[in-house]
Amino acid sequence: MDKFQAYVEANRERFLVELQDFCRQPSIAAQNVGMREMADKVLARLDKLGADARLVEVGEGAPVVYAEIGSGPRTLMIYDHYDVQPAEPLDLWESGPWEAAIRDGKVFARGVADNKGNLVNRIQAVEAYLATIGPLPLRIKFVVEGEEEIGSAHLPQFVRENRALLEGVDGCLWEFGGKDINERPQLWCGLKGDVYVELHAHGAKRDLHSAYAAIVGDPAWRLTWALATLKDAEDRILIDDFMSQVRPPTAAEVEALTTIPFDEEKERTALGIPAFINDRTGVDLVKKYLYEPTCTICGLYSGYIGQGSKTVLPNHAFAKIDFRLVPNLSPDLVVDLLKKHLARRGFDDIQVTLVETGLEVARSPLDSTVVCAAVEAAKAVYPNEPIVYPTSAGSGPMYPLCQALGIPAVSAGCGWHDSRGHAPNESIRIVDYFEGMLFIRELIDRFAAM
Amino acid sequence: MDKFQAYVEANRERFLVELQDFCRQPSIAAQNVGMREMADKVLARLDKLGADARLVEVGEGAPVVYAEIGSGPRTLMIYDHYDVQPAEPLDLWESGPWEAAIRDGKVFARGVADNKGNLVNRIQAVEAYLATIGPLPLRIKFVVEGEEEIGSAHLPQFVRENRALLEGVDGCLWEFGGKDINERPQLWCGLKGDVYVELHAHGAKRDLHSAYAAIVGDPAWRLTWALATLKDAEDRILIDDFMSQVRPPTAAEVEALTTIPFDEEKERTALGIPAFINDRTGVDLVKKYLYEPTCTICGLYSGYIGQGSKTVLPNHAFAKIDFRLVPNLSPDLVVDLLKKHLARRGFDDIQVTLVETGLEVARSPLDSTVVCAAVEAAKAVYPNEPIVYPTSAGSGPMYPLCQALGIPAVSAGCGWHDSRGHAPNESIRIVDYFEGMLFIRELIDRFAAM
Repeated sequence: MDKFQAYVEANRERFLVELQDFCRQPSIAAQNVGMREMADKVLARLDKLGADARLVEVGEGAPVVYAEIGSGPRTLMIYDHYDVQPAEPLDLWESGPWEAAIRDGKVFARGVADNKGNLVNRIQAVEAYLATIGPLPLRIKFVVEGEEEIGSAHLPQFVRENRALLEGVDGCLWEFGGKDINERPQLWCGLKGDVYVELHAHGAKRDLHSAYAAIVGDPAWRLTWALATLKDAEDRILIDDFMSQVRPPTAAEVEALTTIPFDEEKERTALGIPAFINDRTGVDLVKKYLYEPTCTICGLYSGYIGQGSKTVLPNHAFAKIDFRLVPNLSPDLVVDLLKKHLARRGFDDIQVTLVETGLEVARSPLDSTVVCAAVEAAKAVYPNEPIVYPTSAGSGPMYPLCQALGIPAVSAGCGWHDSRGHAPNESIRIVDYFEGMLFIRELIDRFAAM
Repeated sequence: MDKFQAYVEANRERFLVELQDFCRQPSIAAQNVGMREMADKVLARLDKLGADARLVEVGEGAPVVYAEIGSGPRTLMIYDHYDVQPAEPLDLWESGPWEAAIRDGKVFARGVADNKGNLVNRIQAVEAYLATIGPLPLRIKFVVEGEEEIGSAHLPQFVRENRALLEGVDGCLWEFGGKDINERPQLWCGLKGDVYVELHAHGAKRDLHSAYAAIVGDPAWRLTWALATLKDAEDRILIDDFMSQVRPPTAAEVEALTTIPFDEEKERTALGIPAFINDRTGVDLVKKYLYEPTCTICGLYSGYIGQGSKTVLPNHAFAKIDFRLVPNLSPDLVVDLLKKHLARRGFDDIQVTLVETGLEVARSPLDSTVVCAAVEAAKAVYPNEPIVYPTSAGSGPMYPLCQALGIPAVSAGCGWHDSRGHAPNESIRIVDYFEGMLFIRELIDRFAAM
């Protein structure tokens, strides 16, 4: 065991307690809960690390925590976020979402996988580096925002207003990652775009006795009919002029998929589903996962949803819809197409509200230095070969923070295949957590040396 | 002012306090809240009235309160229920649903219009009759059940097991009624049938990050697609073999509608809607209201419905659906047709759950004695002519309790056009409440004398 590993081992208890402490502070961007408290906590930790850390206010948004440490010819940006998803539905958590309970070698908490685990892990890894190896061989710029889970609305403004801080960055370590169902570390070189809207239908002034439904319109029906025009049971998105905008993957992009193992049987069993959509398998399945857009109903509400019956004619219904985007779909375009599609079908009465400003698609070159350094670091640390994905099926502000500035990015982290991001009983495994610190050490050395 | 009126006036305060007391005891059948407490309160009040009152247990159901008082050649059954609808959505109430606040000459409470107002009003009217006029000229049988708002599941069993109690009944005063938007008293001689189901769709074992939606099915979509096959945007119910079962109204039934005034303009304004369904007007509108079946989404739920965004792929979605039935649709038939319809379209995965056992359609002859007595009583008490409806658009257990036993029934009560039954801010007007007691006095006298 080298000095770095020995230090991590010696401080294991303190590192875990610190992670729990971060997880116990709720920081739910969607509900504006605990954001300032969490930003202060991150700031204090980076300060304690010895970094030149500050809170950067961006309009009315949650502040960005920015910090610099180290020096050298190369500069690595580390992007994380201190906000988390809402914890609902609360009754499905086996231990409280803000309890950060440890059991079965795991830490369970809302946000522990996405992304407080990586956030704390990376800071602690730098602490261990400084304590055992010496000064950093490169400059690290931490950018930790507080609105990732609500679409990073203010990050483009942060970039515009703080361009000088982001000068000279050679590559970026993105916020998430982990091991797949066969324990192979995953590296992600791109993200889908995203836009999140609400559709609202309204009826009478107030809820009515359902006997009225013979002559007074039901907004829950109205919403249902409008939704049914957006996607069909074969999962085809039917929004006018939507699919025709999608640039099909190039031959090289399809070729890149063939190196990606995807254990369909294990995944299906873990998810508890009889088949993937349209019975897709093999490269076709992975292609759909990574290269096709989505239109997902994330939430649906109208009327009475309690126990038993209430014979009510509701006066309001809404759906929350998430679109994941691929080239050449942009958030603005999708909202525009959606509104036109509904209007053309007589659904002008359905209100379309933008919940998040939206995120553009981002892809980094697979041969960029930061990707190569991450592959080497992963090979050095993990027993299994890393898998390099041209893009993730998820989203984030990689376009404004990296691609628009010409900065290649790669995403890697300490999650596992059952981390349950955005869902109840979110967790990371403690063994992955400490292995992740070794990966950060290797990434620092290799990226500095390349 | 005669002695009856003087007594009511002298006891006005006490009568209102008693009504408030009944409203302050929650008795939500759907949530099994306060049922036994409420039954005991009704029992005690009927006992205090001098009636021979008892609780009749019926299987696992809420007990029926049964009471007899008076004697004479005629017997009038008075049907009420002591259960109420759930109070949700709570945040839309201006005063608490269990507060029974009095303001602007009204009592506001969950259940005050449907049907505790009439329940207490009728008992108090009998008290006033006995105190001022003398012994009753007929026998009254009170049947007060506790499951009306959940489909009166145990009432048929009550009838089967207590047939002797219901012997010799000549007519029934049903639970509800009131004045329309132009202050005309309404009398109802029939009810639509009703059946209430839930449709459930399931996805993966648990909620997932919405990035998975490219390859894992979304139950909210599945439910949407299934629902969209049930009814179209022209309000046509599309369930196979459903509409073909509907017996069209006879010429006489349509003729009866022409005497029913319906102030469309006022109703539309009060409801805050631009038009009735399919822009129906005139007799066509009333015909649809009273003689056509409905298929109403009363509740809709999936995933995240809180503030802002949560990018989640839900693993469960459900809808609560209420069908109002006309001849010759029965609850069993409708559930059977619904299941077959879904299965035929490949929606076998959608679970159909019966929430209420269902209610058959009921219609009483318009020339029956109890209807004639009610018309005369209304004419004697109210300044405006009563309107006689062949049927209500609402539902209730009139078939098992009355029609199956050959007992004609008529419904009348002390509600008003904005009583908001089943909705927030339910109310009755105090002036209607005390006028309603005069109506009961007249009905007793006229029904006994006819």
